[in-house]
Amino acid sequence: MRAKIISTGEELVLGTVNDTNAAYLARQLRELGITVSQILVIGDHLKTMVTAFENNSRNSDIILVTGGLGPTQDDITARAAADAMGDILEMNNQALASMKSFFKKRGFQLTGENEKQAMLPSRSVLMENQYGTAPGFYMTLKQCMLFFMPGVPSEMEKMFHLSVKPVIQENFELKETIFMKKLSIFGLPESQVGSRLKGFDKKFKDISLGFRAVFPTIEIKLVQYHQKRHIDDDLQSQASQLQSAAGWIKSKIDRYIYSEEGLSLQEALGKELAARKKTVAVAESCTGGLIASLITDVAGSSDYFVYSAVTYSNDAKVEFLDVKKETIVDFGAVHEQTAKEMAVNVKDKCGADYGISTSGIAGPGGGSLEKPVGTVCIGLAGPGTAKSKRYHFPFDDRKKNKQIFAATALNSLLKLVRAG
Amino acid sequence: MRAKIISTGEELVLGTVNDTNAAYLARQLRELGITVSQILVIGDHLKTMVTAFENNSRNSDIILVTGGLGPTQDDITARAAADAMGDILEMNNQALASMKSFFKKRGFQLTGENEKQAMLPSRSVLMENQYGTAPGFYMTLKQCMLFFMPGVPSEMEKMFHLSVKPVIQENFELKETIFMKKLSIFGLPESQVGSRLKGFDKKFKDISLGFRAVFPTIEIKLVQYHQKRHIDDDLQSQASQLQSAAGWIKSKIDRYIYSEEGLSLQEALGKELAARKKTVAVAESCTGGLIASLITDVAGSSDYFVYSAVTYSNDAKVEFLDVKKETIVDFGAVHEQTAKEMAVNVKDKCGADYGISTSGIAGPGGGSLEKPVGTVCIGLAGPGTAKSKRYHFPFDDRKKNKQIFAATALNSLLKLVRAG
Repeated sequence: MRAKIISTGEELVLGTVNDTNAAYLARQLRELGITVSQILVIGDHLKTMVTAFENNSRNSDIILVTGGLGPTQDDITARAAADAMGDILEMNNQALASMKSFFKKRGFQLTGENEKQAMLPSRSVLMENQYGTAPGFYMTLKQCMLFFMPGVPSEMEKMFHLSVKPVIQENFELKETIFMKKLSIFGLPESQVGSRLKGFDKKFKDISLGFRAVFPTIEIKLVQYHQKRHIDDDLQSQASQLQSAAGWIKSKIDRYIYSEEGLSLQEALGKELAARKKTVAVAESCTGGLIASLITDVAGSSDYFVYSAVTYSNDAKVEFLDVKKETIVDFGAVHEQTAKEMAVNVKDKCGADYGISTSGIAGPGGGSLEKPVGTVCIGLAGPGTAKSKRYHFPFDDRKKNKQIFAATALNSLLKLVRAG
Repeated sequence: MRAKIISTGEELVLGTVNDTNAAYLARQLRELGITVSQILVIGDHLKTMVTAFENNSRNSDIILVTGGLGPTQDDITARAAADAMGDILEMNNQALASMKSFFKKRGFQLTGENEKQAMLPSRSVLMENQYGTAPGFYMTLKQCMLFFMPGVPSEMEKMFHLSVKPVIQENFELKETIFMKKLSIFGLPESQVGSRLKGFDKKFKDISLGFRAVFPTIEIKLVQYHQKRHIDDDLQSQASQLQSAAGWIKSKIDRYIYSEEGLSLQEALGKELAARKKTVAVAESCTGGLIASLITDVAGSSDYFVYSAVTYSNDAKVEFLDVKKETIVDFGAVHEQTAKEMAVNVKDKCGADYGISTSGIAGPGGGSLEKPVGTVCIGLAGPGTAKSKRYHFPFDDRKKNKQIFAATALNSLLKLVRAG
């Protein structure tokens, strides 16, 4: 199965916009068991497009094309597709009717410019667009199936699932995904995850292992394909293969796995707090509100999140968190003792079940030999617990430090809640 | 000038990682006056790579290649480059010495695997990597110059500027950028910016207009090229052309432009506060800490940011911000009156010069007919000012709403500070 992707659009070759469609489609094809050999990005030039369709269809079974189906003069993909086929463009009445009903629903009149979008190669098959105006289509050129989709990601994604995927599944003998497992990791850099899991490919040949890093967490995805021709195989044995692959990974990095459901740290924490009907209050210095913002990114967080005091100045720590003046004078704002008082006090002030706090140096300025940029003290308070710990991370970047400080705090609290 | 970009890496054709290098390089070339005609993304397969280098060098003057220069067995770009040239790989002693010194600085020993990285095509020219281990190189194939850079974005970007750009400028007659202007916009969707600026291209033929959307702000970039062959032209007249182009844009969207220096809203606000030696305190409900987090993303924000009370629950609003219980009972938490009290009280409690607040419904739940998802009340307090305003945004997405609520609050305060 030889597959390629062609992304079209002047804005892509100019670098104004990053092409995210190609990677999305490559991932979708991969889940169907199809590996993409090449992605080509070209501008809106008729000759370049025609040549690209002609040349690439010679050595491919499937080509997915995005972009250039809009109403303006730059949108010439349908023209190029017709030229490559030696075909003509003609009005596709079903496409026109579908566009008319799309416009009508929104209270607009169809303009002549939009009608142009319904002009498709005469030997192509329409793929209706229920989420926008640009119709898609597919056609066969030299034994290669070419699928043309709009460039707007949300419309393209829906068209892929509704129209492209079923046609591919109908026309080709595909491997089928039967089992998938996600393990989410925090606290280990990507390079170390990679080296700890060396040998996986040899040990589990039928399972594909993928990483997706969303700093500072990493998601490991295990996918196992079920071959259609072995439809009578024991599915049970494949399930247990995936289990043992996951087990092998856990044996290598167990304590860094915080979720087996593909959750972010704040989602995992929220789930545990909600299940236990517990609440949390936060006191933030160097993370500057980021912990509260992450927690409240989760829908329903008002059930367990009460309050965060972002006390950036020392005065604010004393006045709004009742941190003792002597603590700050004796130890400094960035210290385990200060962090502990912040966590305990914010919890008590709110009558919350848990309190977390941060105080540290995000940089780029403010570091010293003793407390360099990247230092953070994290305080934790819970039923019968009050503790704090100092960490140091090797980043100079202020935003990166804020992110890893916040993630460390969320992860520490998650462990405490699960243990409690 | 015919230019192409080739990105290599199995993770790119698998869709595990989005290719951001190509768009970055396309933008850099564009600023040199070079337009990229095509971007090709291929996996780590020797034959595919060799064919790609051979075929594309036939009809290009410059090809920029990224990826595949690392120490592992997958990293075969140097091998492919040598094969395409009919050349051999040999140890480049300067590359080896540079890697050794890089390792030494970090206290590591060079391994055999790393030494492999210094094996370069014998007829290529080394480009040293001062920020990583993978050396780059360039070579000429059929009159086309091919530049090979590492795939790690930070290393690639530095190598482009230090080594690739100067060689291109030396070897080709280029247009030269002489003037550039950035206008940052908030409060107008991208489609409306586009339609308001229709006709720009015809009016200002020598100036390229680009948009970059970083939700919810948009950056407009004007670039004017100076042709080397007209080196004696009146530079003054070109400067005034750019000025009048910027003036024309301002006449269309003046009140939405918040910065002419390429700043984010929080950077622009920070600059104004710091210049006036004023401070700000924040009271956040629906933005859940995001405003504080954005403000503290800016280095030096401790000079003007004092405190944010993230009062998610009604109790917290009453207890920590002294919002009157009657206000919440009579009007509700999402109301202009509540927002106003929050802003005034947080300012007064901290003795800050300004206060801002948010109370709204980020969704997806919690909306009503009267106060649908996307509603926010923003409170503003300053010297002799206390006011609030209700907005409604058309998004269902919780994170998007938090972002546009926060940006609206920052923009409102920015206007107040500038007026004050």
